[in-house]
Amino acid sequence: MFKKRFLLLSVLLAGLTSAASAQDLTGKYTRTPTGYLMVLRNGDDVIAHIERLAVVEQIPSASIMGIGFMREATFGFYDFSRKVFNPKSFKDVELANLTGSIAWKEGKPSVHAHGIVTDGTFNGAGGHLLGLTVGTGSCEITVLLHPQRLDRFVDPVIGANVLGLHPGAK
Amino acid sequence: MFKKRFLLLSVLLAGLTSAASAQDLTGKYTRTPTGYLMVLRNGDDVIAHIERLAVVEQIPSASIMGIGFMREATFGFYDFSRKVFNPKSFKDVELANLTGSIAWKEGKPSVHAHGIVTDGTFNGAGGHLLGLTVGTGSCEITVLLHPQRLDRFVDPVIGANVLGLHPGAK
Amino acid sequence: MFKKRFLLLSVLLAGLTSAASAQDLTGKYTRTPTGYLMVLRNGDDVIAHIERLAVVEQIPSASIMGIGFMREATFGFYDFSRKVFNPKSFKDVELANLTGSIAWKEGKPSVHAHGIVTDGTFNGAGGHLLGLTVGTGSCEITVLLHPQRLDRFVDPVIGANVLGLHPGAK
Repeated sequence: MFKKRFLLLSVLLAGLTSAASAQDLTGKYTRTPTGYLMVLRNGDDVIAHIERLAVVEQIPSASIMGIGFMREATFGFYDFSRKVFNPKSFKDVELANLTGSIAWKEGKPSVHAHGIVTDGTFNGAGGHLLGLTVGTGSCEITVLLHPQRLDRFVDPVIGANVLGLHPGAK
Repeated sequence: MFKKRFLLLSVLLAGLTSAASAQDLTGKYTRTPTGYLMVLRNGDDVIAHIERLAVVEQIPSASIMGIGFMREATFGFYDFSRKVFNPKSFKDVELANLTGSIAWKEGKPSVHAHGIVTDGTFNGAGGHLLGLTVGTGSCEITVLLHPQRLDRFVDPVIGANVLGLHPGAK
Repeated sequence: MFKKRFLLLSVLLAGLTSAASAQDLTGKYTRTPTGYLMVLRNGDDVIAHIERLAVVEQIPSASIMGIGFMREATFGFYDFSRKVFNPKSFKDVELANLTGSIAWKEGKPSVHAHGIVTDGTFNGAGGHLLGLTVGTGSCEITVLLHPQRLDRFVDPVIGANVLGLHPGAK
């Protein structure tokens, strides 16, 4: 009971101290020897749930992979001259693959994910993920946990986010 | 008692019928610290071999990833109105990526895999895998083992298979 | 100081005994409980860096996955009649996914990698990777380490490289 209350308190505090929206992760993930396995359902915001997992479990850094069926997947291709992502959304698509990483930026979880989606034509489309919402199926995300706290930073030379490795690393 | 015997008989019969398609895994996989590494060859049925591995090694659940060269890859896009997969096959293609999971359903291994294939045009195609046969190359499958026994179930609301996490999970 | 000199010596010796070009890996990777995490930057040759990592860390074998933004990605589709790869290059593309393995061939590291890239049209393209250079972004490679030394060999029947599993394996 005390543990449950403590967990609830931690979650509440994490919610207060973080900008991540309060995704309820109850029953949505399990610990594995190498990290976590998360199963998301119809309507779930995939990136927000991974960020929430990072906060709740205090994931220092991780590699992620997954598949699923999506109500909507939005990708962005970076326009270096205008310094913005040109976005494109795809509806009711299979997520053939999601690959990425979890790190931190300015105290908040930072998920970097790429993906490929397909529709009834089976043609593949994708790239850098801006948004991802589960459709009438599910989404299975495998998290490979790393114990080093890693932070992203903007490399001024390229004007893009880069995953910084811990200074203690080789 | 009769019920139990009948169940046993069913299991035995199921064993015999699956033995007919018994994939010989000799020399085709090795144990790793995080799971297994499987290398399949020309003519091998990839999904059947992963299912066989799940049975032989009694894999409670796992995440899988892989690549290879395929004689044939069949994908299905679900038609929710007709409740069937519309299939499409691709011959002699590179499997750029396979991502998925191993779980169980009604006592049998249940492999959920997505993939992307490319041919001489290099265009990507794929989605939910229905069938996959290795071509004149090989197929390397990495299995990330999870110790929790996980089962799939059909979610009646969406009419699709969902990976259920163990009740003991958060 | 001694450590640094020793590292330098190791790197020099490795460079002498290996054909891999002397990629400087300083600050580019970190050890994880399951392998390594490598972050490459603008202009880095991805395959050469993975080969270099294999030599420096003496990786017996491994599975790899990754994403990034590429200055150039070259894929090859094998022409079995002419016994050559027909190549095609893509410039300034997102690497939606890289999947592959590290093994050895004739004493040198052998990286087998497939990938999918996308450009401003978001259309997916890819297959068997022949070359990969990081662009104005980064490249995150996750290495899942296996302790078995694995070697690739050409299967004369199919005329293609195959990953051989250790004889001690099942």
